[in-house]
Amino acid sequence: MSMSGKGHGAERLVVIGGDAAGMSAASQARRMRGPGELEIVAFERGHFTSYSACGIPYWVGGDVTERDRLIARTPEEHRARDIDLRLRTEVMEIDAGRGRVRTRDVDSGAESWTSYDKLVIATGARPIRPDMPGADAPGVHGVQTLDDGQALLDTLARTRGRRAVVVGAGYIGVEMAEALINRGYEVTVVNRGSEPMATLDPDMGRLVHEAMEGLGITMIDDAEVTKVLTGDDGRVRAVATEEAEYPADVVVLGIGVRPETALAAAAGLPLGTHRGLLTDLAMRVRGHENIWAGGDCVEVLDLVSGQQRHIALGTHANKHGQVIGTNVGGGYATFPGVVGTAVSKVCNLEIARTGLREKDARRVGLQFVTVTVESTSRAGYYPGASPMTVKMLAERRTGRLLGVQIVGREGAAKRVDIAAVALTAGMTVEQMTALDLGYAPPFSPVWDPVLVAARKAVSKVRAS
Amino acid sequence: MSMSGKGHGAERLVVIGGDAAGMSAASQARRMRGPGELEIVAFERGHFTSYSACGIPYWVGGDVTERDRLIARTPEEHRARDIDLRLRTEVMEIDAGRGRVRTRDVDSGAESWTSYDKLVIATGARPIRPDMPGADAPGVHGVQTLDDGQALLDTLARTRGRRAVVVGAGYIGVEMAEALINRGYEVTVVNRGSEPMATLDPDMGRLVHEAMEGLGITMIDDAEVTKVLTGDDGRVRAVATEEAEYPADVVVLGIGVRPETALAAAAGLPLGTHRGLLTDLAMRVRGHENIWAGGDCVEVLDLVSGQQRHIALGTHANKHGQVIGTNVGGGYATFPGVVGTAVSKVCNLEIARTGLREKDARRVGLQFVTVTVESTSRAGYYPGASPMTVKMLAERRTGRLLGVQIVGREGAAKRVDIAAVALTAGMTVEQMTALDLGYAPPFSPVWDPVLVAARKAVSKVRAS
Repeated sequence: MSMSGKGHGAERLVVIGGDAAGMSAASQARRMRGPGELEIVAFERGHFTSYSACGIPYWVGGDVTERDRLIARTPEEHRARDIDLRLRTEVMEIDAGRGRVRTRDVDSGAESWTSYDKLVIATGARPIRPDMPGADAPGVHGVQTLDDGQALLDTLARTRGRRAVVVGAGYIGVEMAEALINRGYEVTVVNRGSEPMATLDPDMGRLVHEAMEGLGITMIDDAEVTKVLTGDDGRVRAVATEEAEYPADVVVLGIGVRPETALAAAAGLPLGTHRGLLTDLAMRVRGHENIWAGGDCVEVLDLVSGQQRHIALGTHANKHGQVIGTNVGGGYATFPGVVGTAVSKVCNLEIARTGLREKDARRVGLQFVTVTVESTSRAGYYPGASPMTVKMLAERRTGRLLGVQIVGREGAAKRVDIAAVALTAGMTVEQMTALDLGYAPPFSPVWDPVLVAARKAVSKVRAS
Repeated sequence: MSMSGKGHGAERLVVIGGDAAGMSAASQARRMRGPGELEIVAFERGHFTSYSACGIPYWVGGDVTERDRLIARTPEEHRARDIDLRLRTEVMEIDAGRGRVRTRDVDSGAESWTSYDKLVIATGARPIRPDMPGADAPGVHGVQTLDDGQALLDTLARTRGRRAVVVGAGYIGVEMAEALINRGYEVTVVNRGSEPMATLDPDMGRLVHEAMEGLGITMIDDAEVTKVLTGDDGRVRAVATEEAEYPADVVVLGIGVRPETALAAAAGLPLGTHRGLLTDLAMRVRGHENIWAGGDCVEVLDLVSGQQRHIALGTHANKHGQVIGTNVGGGYATFPGVVGTAVSKVCNLEIARTGLREKDARRVGLQFVTVTVESTSRAGYYPGASPMTVKMLAERRTGRLLGVQIVGREGAAKRVDIAAVALTAGMTVEQMTALDLGYAPPFSPVWDPVLVAARKAVSKVRAS
């Protein structure tokens, strides 16, 4: 095993993981410190860097035709900026005591140690694979990485059958179901919950359910997959629940992801209840002066509930990378936390949420009122106005905004940003009723749907 | 002259003006107090109540086919809720000392006095008519009221010529220019400023200029109309500036509006520098315990500059009415002020602004940095992604957000709400960089354009 020590007088930064958080950190550190001051080595076990995992469903569905369109910055571009990027190189061990990592060349199997002065862990997340027979059979796919997406597309190209089963009905499951419908598959979604999109309250998830059925997707709710059945060729042939079997030529797992923290755990780094790395606000791993972590492998502070959460989302990963790179480079930046904003396009619906659902609020001991209002995306008389449903949660007595969910055909997704900023600022629903929001007939009724909900919430809070 | 005194034991509320602010106030007061407690009399000099003046350009342009679609609540609906609504009845005088108003029946000319216990002034605004020859000639139209819109449409129906001149290039001017192009007119816009949409900084107004020319509208900038020329029939035939004449079969005035406060001024009520009524935060006219005012006839506090402003906008008028009605009804509500949000759709552009322009900031003594960034409405790889320009102003040293302007083909208008809420909360651009905004490829790049601008502004603030 070779040993790569440090040369010159420069410090060495080692980055584990070549996607959003890792390469943003590397790039920002490079912006702040030239190669004479800071050597940057980045290890990525796959073939790609800095890509949009969120774009994979659109690539699979055919809206995005070329894989490389999902790549924000290629390995060559990173190298041109003096980042020593090693693809197909897996980090096997972090030796935090001696400040080094052990790597393995995926193709040759050769191993070596690389020492570091500063370390960034950006190992991402991995799709949850249910612990059941057949879960690893050929034809069963996660869609977390660009390599995963390519593998799925290869399978689709090879497979004659047109029956797809999606396991799970979160964002990824729902987006993949639509992608597969768009490719002409018969799609069945098997969902453990009572409605799709468990990130919404069930009453709002129902709207998504209806839209998916409208698209011809078969929705099986309250059903737990117990087994993946394989044929004589070892490939998947069906998915089984307690009650039924669903024939499948291809299976996509969309039951969520877990932080990829096996390496960190083995190195004795602190993990939270969601098995994500725990960092301080500067994204430094707690108790480790020279190790930072960001992206899908960390837990973040939920500013509304005060709890740690695990949220795999590119937008957070990019912010983490920016903060880490700034701090590694000797500057100062923090990531104060999240309010839980997530938006998605499914079928003809825009779906948005921020803050707490009813069950989140209950879990942390908050009492609250909820209101749901029906409004429109534009002034009612303006052509193209379409229905929009806004649900709002506010704390009992104080009236503090706790969460908003919006479902509609247009103008719903980014409208939730109003609530995201209001949550960040700790506004009450009464304060929100006075917000000076943009109004013109093509974009909003004269009372924005969010204001209508806030007004209604005020009345309920008064009575609470 | 008859005198209408009060009957029963009920208090009487008199409302002057039957559009958004006045009728919202009346409706909210009625919600809080039944007819046994509060008699409500509303005077409106026109034919209509509770209509969307903002919708007039779309009606004139043909996007909205029926006038009555612009009416949110008809006179009959108001009357059914025990509001004694008197159309075609103009208030001629407010006698604040004796608590009464003198009205005149527009058709018969009959006058009478009506006493009040509480008075709401919602007299709106009137289009500025330049003080020059011909400004009142037939064929010259303002578009402030539904009656104005009807008069313009009647003129268009009667007029053979297809040449229209729009004087002024603010929201109304620009929207009317597009409406007239949509109806097949040759449209010339004569604009006193260097670019259209003076509510934007000129560099952003330039983008609107280009879009309007792209639609075939002739833009004459830096030109002051000095005269409206009339033909032998007394009708308009051209508009003249110092330099040139522009033939016109119809002229639309879009040079802004002034608060309609002649009545209030004659009654000795306090007016501000913009000639709007001055109220306290509960929308009570300063120094007058039982008189409220709201909508286009009042000045409002700009929370960013700390100055009083006059902003004629339906969304404020509705909020004012809601606040007034609550207070008149014995509840408590305030209108804390505005941050100056305004959005518009012109040609294929969405145009949005909030907070201060460069000249506003300078006027109140603020030093600031500005950044302008080019981004996209969706992830760059997602079909339909289109360019978006975001300009941001932040205070020097403190980094406090001062203003945002956004121009783009989609997703620009309501995106400004992010900044509107951030302004309300007094956020710095550094705080904004951490905002948890909605991200999914169909709706935003992974760094929302507003975040990109905020990050760039942070760098500039640091160097300021």
